[in-house]
Amino acid sequence: MSILKSFIEVSEDSHFPIQNLPYGVFKPTLNDQARIGVAIGDFVCDLSVLADLKLFDGKLKDTKVFHQENLNSFMSLGKELWSEARKTIQNLLSSETSTIRDNKEYREKIFHSISSVTMLLPARIGDYTDFYASKEHATNVGIMFRGKENALMPNWVHLPVGYHGRSSSIVVSGTPLKRPWGQTKSDEPDSLPTFNPCRLLDFELEMGALIGGESTKLGEPISIESAKDHIFGLVLLNDWSARDIQKWEYVPLGPFLAKNFGSTISPWVVTMEALQPFATKPPTQDPQPMKYLQEQGNTTFDIELSVSIKSPKMSKPHKVSTSNLKYMYWTLTQQLAHHTVNGCNMNAGDLLGTGTISGPTEDSYGSMLELSWKGSKVVSLGTETNEERKFIQDGDSVILSGLCKGNGYQIGFGNCEGTILPADKRQ
Amino acid sequence: MSILKSFIEVSEDSHFPIQNLPYGVFKPTLNDQARIGVAIGDFVCDLSVLADLKLFDGKLKDTKVFHQENLNSFMSLGKELWSEARKTIQNLLSSETSTIRDNKEYREKIFHSISSVTMLLPARIGDYTDFYASKEHATNVGIMFRGKENALMPNWVHLPVGYHGRSSSIVVSGTPLKRPWGQTKSDEPDSLPTFNPCRLLDFELEMGALIGGESTKLGEPISIESAKDHIFGLVLLNDWSARDIQKWEYVPLGPFLAKNFGSTISPWVVTMEALQPFATKPPTQDPQPMKYLQEQGNTTFDIELSVSIKSPKMSKPHKVSTSNLKYMYWTLTQQLAHHTVNGCNMNAGDLLGTGTISGPTEDSYGSMLELSWKGSKVVSLGTETNEERKFIQDGDSVILSGLCKGNGYQIGFGNCEGTILPADKRQ
Ligand SMILES: [Ca+2]
Ligand SMILES: [Ca+2]
Ligand SMILES: [Mg+2]
Ligand SMILES: [Mg+2]
Ligand code: NI
Repeated sequence: MSILKSFIEVSEDSHFPIQNLPYGVFKPTLNDQARIGVAIGDFVCDLSVLADLKLFDGKLKDTKVFHQENLNSFMSLGKELWSEARKTIQNLLSSETSTIRDNKEYREKIFHSISSVTMLLPARIGDYTDFYASKEHATNVGIMFRGKENALMPNWVHLPVGYHGRSSSIVVSGTPLKRPWGQTKSDEPDSLPTFNPCRLLDFELEMGALIGGESTKLGEPISIESAKDHIFGLVLLNDWSARDIQKWEYVPLGPFLAKNFGSTISPWVVTMEALQPFATKPPTQDPQPMKYLQEQGNTTFDIELSVSIKSPKMSKPHKVSTSNLKYMYWTLTQQLAHHTVNGCNMNAGDLLGTGTISGPTEDSYGSMLELSWKGSKVVSLGTETNEERKFIQDGDSVILSGLCKGNGYQIGFGNCEGTILPADKRQ
Repeated sequence: MSILKSFIEVSEDSHFPIQNLPYGVFKPTLNDQARIGVAIGDFVCDLSVLADLKLFDGKLKDTKVFHQENLNSFMSLGKELWSEARKTIQNLLSSETSTIRDNKEYREKIFHSISSVTMLLPARIGDYTDFYASKEHATNVGIMFRGKENALMPNWVHLPVGYHGRSSSIVVSGTPLKRPWGQTKSDEPDSLPTFNPCRLLDFELEMGALIGGESTKLGEPISIESAKDHIFGLVLLNDWSARDIQKWEYVPLGPFLAKNFGSTISPWVVTMEALQPFATKPPTQDPQPMKYLQEQGNTTFDIELSVSIKSPKMSKPHKVSTSNLKYMYWTLTQQLAHHTVNGCNMNAGDLLGTGTISGPTEDSYGSMLELSWKGSKVVSLGTETNEERKFIQDGDSVILSGLCKGNGYQIGFGNCEGTILPADKRQ
């Protein structure tokens, strides 16, 4: 069987072949209404126009979900209609289908050059939760702050540790963020805290799962078996972290201002359906988790992840880390089952961050904290400028990327990029 | 000067005289559209009808904000229009104003018996943050879990400790909640965690501040001086807590499933303008906080708070605690200034919980954890049934109340009530 192709030419290294079709929210020009599209090669296919042209049928015939300024309505429709939409779009974009391929007027209305559109946040995120699900990351951080003996807290192997994050400050890739001010305190025992711009600014390489389907009712858990039906798709997530602010503030109730100055997600949501061919086995869990967290089979995904940094002096980014979603100890479905086991309700558009995804080797760590081992060594930004970093400096851009390599094709997440601007001047 | 009176008769012990006029969202009957009203005595005054009758003028003349199903649009209008709306409503309801007083048709359209309407959540809460701002509470909890020497963490006196909460599971007073299931672990050193319904279910007596005004921009802090202009009003907040789940899960990233199974708020939002006569000085802060947290004058409010419990056997609730907002060490404005000092953005409808408000005496503690001193003593539910509690049992209702006693009048928050249902049956 030959591989499905689109009549839109898609280069071999594109993240967006017809097998992907990630959803995003865009404006063709800044004055246009936001609407929904899918990425295909170097183009965005405008789904609101497909709908206006009556190219969807069945339950999606007169749909307005693609005319919305976020994916929430579409995501709330549930698995069957996601699948139907994908089938319709994939068929319409196929090289075998003449409807659009042979209609110049249609093509002109439907396709925008991906470099000309403005991408917006894909979802109105009601609640954002961040997990801490990579054993390598939790162990690394534990060793640095509590020593090798007590690296992992006793609860860590029994449940996916998570905490609530801030929704309002989640921004789409490309949005610059100012270095935050905050209270920090030196390690000197009698020192007083000081107020200053963050000195230890970091990224965290994560992925985020966008919840879809009907809202669940308060008091009604999502079982581990049905959890996958409640996840619409994944994005890249950079959980920017101010390590010095975090260290001073986080005991006993967790990170707060160290995290909520901004979190960046990628604009394109890759659906679980597109990711299915890349499903794979997660790491063996020992001890066996409790029954409500037990699952079998290929419950995670082989997604190659990378982090690159570009300083203002560099002409192109330099890769500082390579990791993979499949290293994560607790899967997305375990996270969702745990999150709701107490009856906590979920709405379409809620975002579950995986936590920093670190791999087993030193070049696969998902944060500067780990890559520079708490600032004890430097991370090279490559031979172009011979710059080095322990943490992120003003003007640096951090670029996350994610790619699945399939049999004869690849699908990707595009980039999740953010640049750190200097802190405000303040007295 | 005599005290302002309404032509609506308001009994002396009512929480809702014309000096109050708290806003809420209600449905006259279950089939009606939700809309905005103010409470006056035993009635709800329907502001959408006032608007339809063109009884607002100026910038509110053709307003649709009172036809919305939450207060967000109205709250986003900002301080001047809140004040204008209050002035108009207070004037229309005054015993001196004939417009409604002498128009039977108007009166029939405008007023609903407060006992006949269904109250809904007052706001669409985008982000919910919970603080930990009572020194008495933090000290009590610290003594119980870490001993007297280390009761307060070093950061506690330098900043209002806070953490993010879950918005989706915030419910309006009257909504029953099921006892949550979750992982807990006994204190035995080699014991394994178990999965069971929470055994140590608790309330937390808190107030919540609803943010209003224009959304702030990411990266732009709210100064301590302007913080009060960004707070629309207050509600009562019961931050239900599963102490045994909390104890096992909360290290190192804070409370999660122990809190997000449900948080209850009162339906009536008492505005800062109505509370202004009850402004008072907060406790002296030592050490002096950093400059961005410094404020002067009457920056907190004298609001008498109480917690009552009613078991299924009891005919009426029994008061188990009496506290006051003014005991809180960190004020609402300090909380907001701290929350945004790193540039975190705020939207109308965001909710800031104060944290448990405990007073200096044993009968003023704001949680069963403190009242029963970690279960080491019993709390009496009174002589009607001679029942006792260490924590909350199935069928118990917990009722928070808040009241400001003024010169010749009082204004109150009504009740914030919730009943705990038995846990689900699960294998
Ligand atoms: Ca994180
Ligand atoms: Ca609390
Ligand atoms: Mg963040
Ligand atoms: Mg709660
Ligand atoms: Ni290199």
